[in-house]
Amino acid sequence: MTQNLPSGLTAGAVVAASSANLGPGFDSLGLALSLYDEITVETTDSGLTIDVEGEGAGQVPLDASHLVVRAIRHGLQAAGVGAAGLKVHCRNAIPHSRGLGSSAAAVVGGLAAANALVAQSDSAPLTDVELIQLSSEFEGHPDNASAAVLGGAVVSWTDGEGPFPRYAAAPLRLHPDIRLFPAIPEIRSSTAETRVLLPDHVSHVDARFNVSRAALLVVALTERPDLLLEATADRLHQPQRAAAMPASAEYLKILRRSGIAAVLSGAGPAVIALSDGPDLPAEAVEFGTANGFTVSEMRVGEGVRWASGVTVNG
Amino acid sequence: MTQNLPSGLTAGAVVAASSANLGPGFDSLGLALSLYDEITVETTDSGLTIDVEGEGAGQVPLDASHLVVRAIRHGLQAAGVGAAGLKVHCRNAIPHSRGLGSSAAAVVGGLAAANALVAQSDSAPLTDVELIQLSSEFEGHPDNASAAVLGGAVVSWTDGEGPFPRYAAAPLRLHPDIRLFPAIPEIRSSTAETRVLLPDHVSHVDARFNVSRAALLVVALTERPDLLLEATADRLHQPQRAAAMPASAEYLKILRRSGIAAVLSGAGPAVIALSDGPDLPAEAVEFGTANGFTVSEMRVGEGVRWASGVTVNG
Repeated sequence: MTQNLPSGLTAGAVVAASSANLGPGFDSLGLALSLYDEITVETTDSGLTIDVEGEGAGQVPLDASHLVVRAIRHGLQAAGVGAAGLKVHCRNAIPHSRGLGSSAAAVVGGLAAANALVAQSDSAPLTDVELIQLSSEFEGHPDNASAAVLGGAVVSWTDGEGPFPRYAAAPLRLHPDIRLFPAIPEIRSSTAETRVLLPDHVSHVDARFNVSRAALLVVALTERPDLLLEATADRLHQPQRAAAMPASAEYLKILRRSGIAAVLSGAGPAVIALSDGPDLPAEAVEFGTANGFTVSEMRVGEGVRWASGVTVNG
Repeated sequence: MTQNLPSGLTAGAVVAASSANLGPGFDSLGLALSLYDEITVETTDSGLTIDVEGEGAGQVPLDASHLVVRAIRHGLQAAGVGAAGLKVHCRNAIPHSRGLGSSAAAVVGGLAAANALVAQSDSAPLTDVELIQLSSEFEGHPDNASAAVLGGAVVSWTDGEGPFPRYAAAPLRLHPDIRLFPAIPEIRSSTAETRVLLPDHVSHVDARFNVSRAALLVVALTERPDLLLEATADRLHQPQRAAAMPASAEYLKILRRSGIAAVLSGAGPAVIALSDGPDLPAEAVEFGTANGFTVSEMRVGEGVRWASGVTVNG
């Protein structure tokens, strides 16, 4: 039987953006970025109020279908507690529909905020393993979800198929020399749309090409940044997406030609460059800027954090 | 112009067996084993004498088509030297046609023995990078060749296609808890035959399944032996080969069911089990022994070693 939380409890969560599908690591290699959404929530006697500032304000639905609200409800339910009403405030820095894991962040952040409410009851909050499982089930991208939960760089994998796969992830020790330069375009893309471009079948040659590069990318990310360029070669998703996002494809080409390991972030159109030390070449940054990308350096993102008893804005 | 080496120079090389295609790492993940072939060679005034003891004795050709001899000749040529005649002795411990990298060992050992002759001339011996390139070109399995050159566990990859691909490899720091249990069957298999069983195309789902497991296997081999079982799941080559080697397939199944990460060694029919600590279950060893496998524990193999001025047997 579900225990209803008293009204007046407050909680908050901070959750990172992420780049998934890194080069050869389709659905598998994810990287959290130092760009964070903040969620605060308060239990109330009834009803639902949602307030969004920053990215997505005025665009996302402000009702029970809001992704963060659904995730909070899901997290409470998983812990066996309920809430009569909720007041939710989202302060978003992660742009939507660019391939930066905003949906995974919303789900992980919502589940973590629920955790911070649950921690004020007799029930046990979800563990990281459970957060990865629930958020991946909810959102479908285990590499984004795992990066948002654990922070840093992760390898994620899926066990079993059909309606109840098991999702898991292992953290990588990212080499300290690696510098991250996301390029975020003004234009949006929908993951659902871009995934349609991927073929049902690939050649065995291309499959093993990506297998070797995905293995190598783990080596490059942890021990051998000098191998990042070779380790980020891919045949399973980026070539297929190039025609749908020509500016991203050209920007990738310019970076890689100059020796910088650049890959699509998620399903794009954002791009992320991983440098083993040097700044990005001026030519590349100029092309990016002239084509509507905001190019900046970010640090690797931290894992989701949550706290009870915060001040709820809005 | 080729400098002919004087007669009477001697050289030797010791080279390890290897398991390639490890689980998901088709053509990519290789592991050297503490089972070594020894090659000794002496320059003579003319002709060719070859003597083979141990594995392959009485079965391999004792003329210029002998793989070790071809590799020695190739290594000398690459260094720009020649030899009027050669006397070669092979003491082989690596069984042939089992999936234990005997061909790669022959080529790498031959090239290394040539290096030890070249070191006695004015020419420069081949570097490890060149040994990997030449032996992979020669033999076609960069994961076996790289493991034989570097020792330990390796990720190998191929750049470019057509007649002149570039081969490269990066070593992994194998976790010290990992124990290796090869199972070597009496029956032989031909890699050329078994490779025919592989499909030209695979589903995108299976390709990304192996991508995630290959990335995970690097994590498991270096940092997380507890993940070896999950990290060695494969859909690109082992299921397709099972029917051709039912005893190996059944032995794999018994080991994996009991939680031991077992995979085909190369294209089989040998199997290698990677334990994160425990001995193999008695049930599995009994099945293996009853079905013609010799099951033993080996250490990880060292990289190829070569020396000038050795005693040439035979």
